[in-house]
Amino acid sequence: MPQLRLALAQLNPTVGDLPGNAALVREWCHRAAAAGAGLVAFPELMLTGYPVEDLVFRESFVTASRAELARLAGDLASEGLADLPVIVGYLDADGPARVSAEATRAAGPRNTSALLHRGRVVARYAKHHLPNYGVFDEDRYFVPGDTLTVVRLGPPGGAVDLALTICEDLWQAGGPFTAAGVAGVGLVVNINGSPYELTTDDRRLPLVASRAIEAGTHVAYVNMVGGQDELVFDGDSMIVAPDGRLLARAPRFTDHLLVHDLDLPTATAPDLAGTAAGGMRVARVALPVDPPTPPGPPVSGGIAGRPELAAEVWRALVLGLRDYVHKNRFGSVVLGLSGGIDSSVAATIAADAIGPAQVVGVSMPSQFSSDHSRDDAVELAKRVGLDFRTEPIQPMVDAFLANLSLSGVAVENLQARVRGVILMALSNQEGHLVLTTGNKSELAVGYSTLYGDSVGGFNPLKDVPKTMVWRLARWRNRAATERGEVPPIPERAITKPPSAELRPGQRDTDSLPPYQELDAILAGYVDADLGRDGLVEAGHDPETVDRVLRMVDAAEYKRRQSAPGTKISIKAFGRDRRLPITNRFR
Amino acid sequence: MPQLRLALAQLNPTVGDLPGNAALVREWCHRAAAAGAGLVAFPELMLTGYPVEDLVFRESFVTASRAELARLAGDLASEGLADLPVIVGYLDADGPARVSAEATRAAGPRNTSALLHRGRVVARYAKHHLPNYGVFDEDRYFVPGDTLTVVRLGPPGGAVDLALTICEDLWQAGGPFTAAGVAGVGLVVNINGSPYELTTDDRRLPLVASRAIEAGTHVAYVNMVGGQDELVFDGDSMIVAPDGRLLARAPRFTDHLLVHDLDLPTATAPDLAGTAAGGMRVARVALPVDPPTPPGPPVSGGIAGRPELAAEVWRALVLGLRDYVHKNRFGSVVLGLSGGIDSSVAATIAADAIGPAQVVGVSMPSQFSSDHSRDDAVELAKRVGLDFRTEPIQPMVDAFLANLSLSGVAVENLQARVRGVILMALSNQEGHLVLTTGNKSELAVGYSTLYGDSVGGFNPLKDVPKTMVWRLARWRNRAATERGEVPPIPERAITKPPSAELRPGQRDTDSLPPYQELDAILAGYVDADLGRDGLVEAGHDPETVDRVLRMVDAAEYKRRQSAPGTKISIKAFGRDRRLPITNRFR
Repeated sequence: MPQLRLALAQLNPTVGDLPGNAALVREWCHRAAAAGAGLVAFPELMLTGYPVEDLVFRESFVTASRAELARLAGDLASEGLADLPVIVGYLDADGPARVSAEATRAAGPRNTSALLHRGRVVARYAKHHLPNYGVFDEDRYFVPGDTLTVVRLGPPGGAVDLALTICEDLWQAGGPFTAAGVAGVGLVVNINGSPYELTTDDRRLPLVASRAIEAGTHVAYVNMVGGQDELVFDGDSMIVAPDGRLLARAPRFTDHLLVHDLDLPTATAPDLAGTAAGGMRVARVALPVDPPTPPGPPVSGGIAGRPELAAEVWRALVLGLRDYVHKNRFGSVVLGLSGGIDSSVAATIAADAIGPAQVVGVSMPSQFSSDHSRDDAVELAKRVGLDFRTEPIQPMVDAFLANLSLSGVAVENLQARVRGVILMALSNQEGHLVLTTGNKSELAVGYSTLYGDSVGGFNPLKDVPKTMVWRLARWRNRAATERGEVPPIPERAITKPPSAELRPGQRDTDSLPPYQELDAILAGYVDADLGRDGLVEAGHDPETVDRVLRMVDAAEYKRRQSAPGTKISIKAFGRDRRLPITNRFR
Repeated sequence: MPQLRLALAQLNPTVGDLPGNAALVREWCHRAAAAGAGLVAFPELMLTGYPVEDLVFRESFVTASRAELARLAGDLASEGLADLPVIVGYLDADGPARVSAEATRAAGPRNTSALLHRGRVVARYAKHHLPNYGVFDEDRYFVPGDTLTVVRLGPPGGAVDLALTICEDLWQAGGPFTAAGVAGVGLVVNINGSPYELTTDDRRLPLVASRAIEAGTHVAYVNMVGGQDELVFDGDSMIVAPDGRLLARAPRFTDHLLVHDLDLPTATAPDLAGTAAGGMRVARVALPVDPPTPPGPPVSGGIAGRPELAAEVWRALVLGLRDYVHKNRFGSVVLGLSGGIDSSVAATIAADAIGPAQVVGVSMPSQFSSDHSRDDAVELAKRVGLDFRTEPIQPMVDAFLANLSLSGVAVENLQARVRGVILMALSNQEGHLVLTTGNKSELAVGYSTLYGDSVGGFNPLKDVPKTMVWRLARWRNRAATERGEVPPIPERAITKPPSAELRPGQRDTDSLPPYQELDAILAGYVDADLGRDGLVEAGHDPETVDRVLRMVDAAEYKRRQSAPGTKISIKAFGRDRRLPITNRFR
């Protein structure tokens, strides 16, 4: 029974940085070779980053991707890695894509997995199942492949058959995995760009296991890691046996090389002729390399444990923010510190992401700011070690009030907008990225001031419901305590009733239901697409439901202008949920 | 040869207003009946409005659409219109759709055309070709139909065969039109939600004509009219003969009932059994109504002429803005008047859209505002009849400068942001929708202040290049002169060099290439997806190209937070052009 030391390189590419991504591949190929790997696999579209969206339609981009792959194959060979088979995702096409159904089909952009060996591309596979739901628009971009590529790796009599697949091929029934089962391969290598989604269940492992069992093959799942605009990829690469048993699993939210020795069945298919199964053709390629028997004692990749939910979400938010800041070449961020829970948690995430000295926290008190809020902002900044400033807003607010006749909500919003102008001025003057900190519950019901507290280039809490913000704060404080550190977030910021402090004695519950109730309704309406009747059937108060749904629908125009932020839920505002602004359906 | 008086109802539905849209259908069915029509057709998804986007995933919405159709059929019958066959678009599904490929296929949401008669739905057709490019995401929403529905209308021996199709069915080769040709129908009724796109050529008529010729059948094309968020539908309904000759064509950008008598071939297919062609099954339905011979002398719908390009764009922008304002239940708008060309044109569009008394124009001069700019703003407001105010910004700007240490661009942006705060305060206090007026050239290169001049709920010039803004101004003034009215836009606002007036002597050309050159590069980069090399090959200066492309790429984050605005180009910023913010490809 042939042995294969398989390496899965769970890495963090940057969209559009083709030379940088290729350099990452080369660096980690050296690591894989040093670990004695007989095969190394990188994530989906590793060379271009993912998702590349409408860059697909730019001929110069497709050309650059193809050229980078050829260069990479050559570079690997010239760097002494000629004999290491390398699987890597890139963008390929027959010609320039265009924004029309017929033209795209003609051009044939394909989300492709390539096998590199001895300076050449020896096999290619084009993704068959294209996700076109949620945040994905791959029917817009890619032509589906119709051929499963099976590679016979090793010398005659001691070779293994492995099949190349990509991401969604695993999530939909039929197609490549069915074909791989019929073709009798010993290993399916599935390369992924699969974003993090908060679920209390583990959805990936059961899925990988069931496909392994169905096809009777080992499955190696390698996923990217890192943030790309609103998505964060969590890694979670893994290897599963034909009986569904988990053999190895990488830690999440971090670069990792998962190296594991596999005993694979000797390839027995009589010859290399093409067959057909699962609605696909099968193309076979032989790679008669030296026996890939691993050197030294058997190596296991180990099975990384899964942290508790709050810890997992925290890591997702930290990584999503860090990559947005650094990949967009910012060195620092600035945010308003109200002393409330949202800005306290956001500041702590930012400090964990890029270091507290790179986080400017600005207290911008008004006549309605309570003493405890000012104190809590100062205390948080001190505990976390932020670059802290105070900029009272009253002089600017007064200048507007002296020149305009304003009352009620207009005066409330004015205060928030003066704060927004201050933060943007600091950004323009000093070069910080502005963070906005409205949570998902507020964003849902429009409980924010457009161009006020909503100003910012990124929102780490955009997809975090208020009740989860509290949970994150408690977890982060507890984690600090367990490490013998000072809990960053002042207890009072967690326990006090939330208030925007835009008028005397204001509380969020003046305008909104309690957050526990609000978040439950929002989970039904936003995440599960329940209508009014469904929510009432689920036990919610009809009047409250009506009020919340009206608020959510009416706030669509605000969300359309909101800053990007890391998606963690099954349905984030943005590409994940596309609703018209003009909409009279109630 | 049977005669049919065909009525095409080019109407303006509102997304989500199912009862209101059904009421429109009933009202115009009465008009069609009064005109002696034997068949009346309404646009694609007339009952729900279009596009409904993720409302498709809400079960309550699908249920409401189905119920509204049934109610409409009954209401028409009870209102004395039982015998008039009515074709109308609505949303149908077997069950609730869900945001996953497999679940959507199972649920089967379908973009459907229904034929109503005598209180019942007598035939249905589900759209076969689904557009999934540009602004369209129909693979996300709909399951394609695989059956062409042919209706035999009229008594045995004197009936005509007509086929139901929907929009994209016309734009892609094969499928329904091929099947209709093989089935030998005399008329294809194609119902549309086809948004306006500025093209110097007429693309629709040649397309309709070529499909008519291919299938050897009359084609009736009925399109909706009106604005829906960033789209504006222009109508342009038409009827074309089997030889490709245009028989009738409706005026654009207005509600219209196009009534035209057709001589149609007697249905000759031997029976009503199903056949197959063009990759589709053919289902046949008989509607043995009384001979639909039209009463009185022959009626022709006439052929509306096409106005010159600037006039056409102006009407598109007026309609897009009017519908955004009214469908979102605003009564008035407010915008800043700088005395420059953009705000002058936007204010005039707004006045044409909702009446000058509903347009609040605010002059917000600073120390850098020139006398001629202030004067031109006053003059424009007077000529157009706006509700005009002046709010000098210096006191507020000074309050910020006294409390923050700002210089350079931070001071420039501060002025724009103080103006934004003033407009938003007026909006909050008085209930106006704020209009922002940055043109497409500025939006492309990021020549604007985020949360400054970019604040607003809608931007009538979002997709209008600067050079087109000037052209529109000149056309509008000329049109006024030809009507014996005062030209609205002061000549100096058109002829003076553009300036943001945020520092002494500032001109747009300090930071940007001349707009003629800039717009030509942007048309290549944005609209045509040319890369750097392609633009240089096209004759542009390499350094200018590099500079412009850098600016366009770097401004993606601003565009992501920009207000919606009417699409007129082949590629508008927004859903039409989806690029990552984080992107290092140069």
